[in-house]
Amino acid sequence: MDKFLPKSNNFSTRVKDSFARQTAMHTLGIYIDTVQAGEVTLSMPYSTALSQQHGFIHAGVITTGMDSAAGYAAFSLMADDAAVLTVEFKVNLLSPARGDRFLFKGTVIKPGRNITFTEAKAYAVNKGQEKLIATMSATMMAVVGRDEIKG
Amino acid sequence: MDKFLPKSNNFSTRVKDSFARQTAMHTLGIYIDTVQAGEVTLSMPYSTALSQQHGFIHAGVITTGMDSAAGYAAFSLMADDAAVLTVEFKVNLLSPARGDRFLFKGTVIKPGRNITFTEAKAYAVNKGQEKLIATMSATMMAVVGRDEIKG
Amino acid sequence: MDKFLPKSNNFSTRVKDSFARQTAMHTLGIYIDTVQAGEVTLSMPYSTALSQQHGFIHAGVITTGMDSAAGYAAFSLMADDAAVLTVEFKVNLLSPARGDRFLFKGTVIKPGRNITFTEAKAYAVNKGQEKLIATMSATMMAVVGRDEIKG
Amino acid sequence: MDKFLPKSNNFSTRVKDSFARQTAMHTLGIYIDTVQAGEVTLSMPYSTALSQQHGFIHAGVITTGMDSAAGYAAFSLMADDAAVLTVEFKVNLLSPARGDRFLFKGTVIKPGRNITFTEAKAYAVNKGQEKLIATMSATMMAVVGRDEIKG
Repeated sequence: MDKFLPKSNNFSTRVKDSFARQTAMHTLGIYIDTVQAGEVTLSMPYSTALSQQHGFIHAGVITTGMDSAAGYAAFSLMADDAAVLTVEFKVNLLSPARGDRFLFKGTVIKPGRNITFTEAKAYAVNKGQEKLIATMSATMMAVVGRDEIKG
Repeated sequence: MDKFLPKSNNFSTRVKDSFARQTAMHTLGIYIDTVQAGEVTLSMPYSTALSQQHGFIHAGVITTGMDSAAGYAAFSLMADDAAVLTVEFKVNLLSPARGDRFLFKGTVIKPGRNITFTEAKAYAVNKGQEKLIATMSATMMAVVGRDEIKG
Repeated sequence: MDKFLPKSNNFSTRVKDSFARQTAMHTLGIYIDTVQAGEVTLSMPYSTALSQQHGFIHAGVITTGMDSAAGYAAFSLMADDAAVLTVEFKVNLLSPARGDRFLFKGTVIKPGRNITFTEAKAYAVNKGQEKLIATMSATMMAVVGRDEIKG
Repeated sequence: MDKFLPKSNNFSTRVKDSFARQTAMHTLGIYIDTVQAGEVTLSMPYSTALSQQHGFIHAGVITTGMDSAAGYAAFSLMADDAAVLTVEFKVNLLSPARGDRFLFKGTVIKPGRNITFTEAKAYAVNKGQEKLIATMSATMMAVVGRDEIKG
């Protein structure tokens, strides 16, 4: 994957501060593993509180992790005055979300002034073995100058 | 929208029983409003525990509601021995998820033996006014004879 | 569907002039049926020259018609100095594209300054009967001030 | 990417024979570059006959190439009695399709008895330089025992 230059010197702190304000992440038990320019990895332990009818993690919860990973990957390359919003995403559910914990890895494919193309992958981890269980492609938008939407 | 015939005489109970086993729904505060053949509506109050960095409901949570609504709309038309799994979905986020509560309406577009095409819409409700905030198109799969996946 | 106000007094002519420059439309035999503010319908006769291996029209050709219909639906609401580009689309292929001719109906779901959400539907027509065969959801972008991209 | 085992000893011939029956490929000037188990690459020269209003290749034509590449990548792993149909796809248009010629590379992500997940990438080639211009994720379905749909 190409490497991209962040517009903010402070991008890692900006990502972590914004992530800390996503209370949905706390509720779901998702936390930050790594932040690089254009790439963010999140982590979540299995919890029966998040399962669907067969005991696997609900596809929507897996999507929530991938959306945050992809959104913050985009945000990591944006200017200091920009916030990020998700325009749309497409998710493929390759395998049931069965595992001890889950990784969500978001990556920028093509950054842009308004629109940033991103991808995310979700992995289930069982006894240290990672298995790709879902993929996302997402379009992120930089938002500047809207008071209600910051960071 | 065309009306479709359910294969199970018992479809409403089957949907409610399966939904009751989705602990993620309880955790997120999502409950069933209505179950018809090929159409399921769910409801969720606003909660700060489910918000993203700007205080709106996280796009992944909105997606979770739409995925369950669409999945159970598909499931409502399936035979008694079938379970349902989501193959993929595409979500468009038209407006920030700001509201007192949220409705998720799933509808079957075209049922099939293996594959069922569905749609879902998410509405934010503010002081009784409904606003369309997100749309989903989702492909659902009927699964028969896999012991780990029932209902 | 909500009705939207065009920003150009001249929107119908703008759509027709731009469409006339899409040589791909001529090559595929696609022409304009109707242009309204936020809604464009295109038409195409069946041709063996456009078929896939089973004799149906190739999914990509059906997509081409839906993309143009959705793109021009978005364009019909844009200002006089804006051009339109497709950011992304999702296509569901409900039934094989078998028919005497095909209709592509594009509709704006939510217009915006930068981003316009659209939908398109493709219908096969057999002996006067219309059948929905494919659906698209597409994100369109207004482009202003790029010399290479006009209209 | 993982390597997958084809179910047919004859997969390359099966792909080429089926492709030869896609008259849309001839009309658009798309031909086969390479066929491997789970990976097919197609090629297309630029033609003004396939352009949109700004002179770039129409997004629908780029999609047609990616759909065939992804479909035949899936088909290359299927059994001798199976045909392939596209269920749905999502396309991201990263850059305008400007180039001397175009490559469409389809890859299987996860094969399955009914459903195969695939990806495709489109590249524009300018003076020997390849540039990624579009990505697709597509769901393919194996069809067995339907007389109208073979190969």
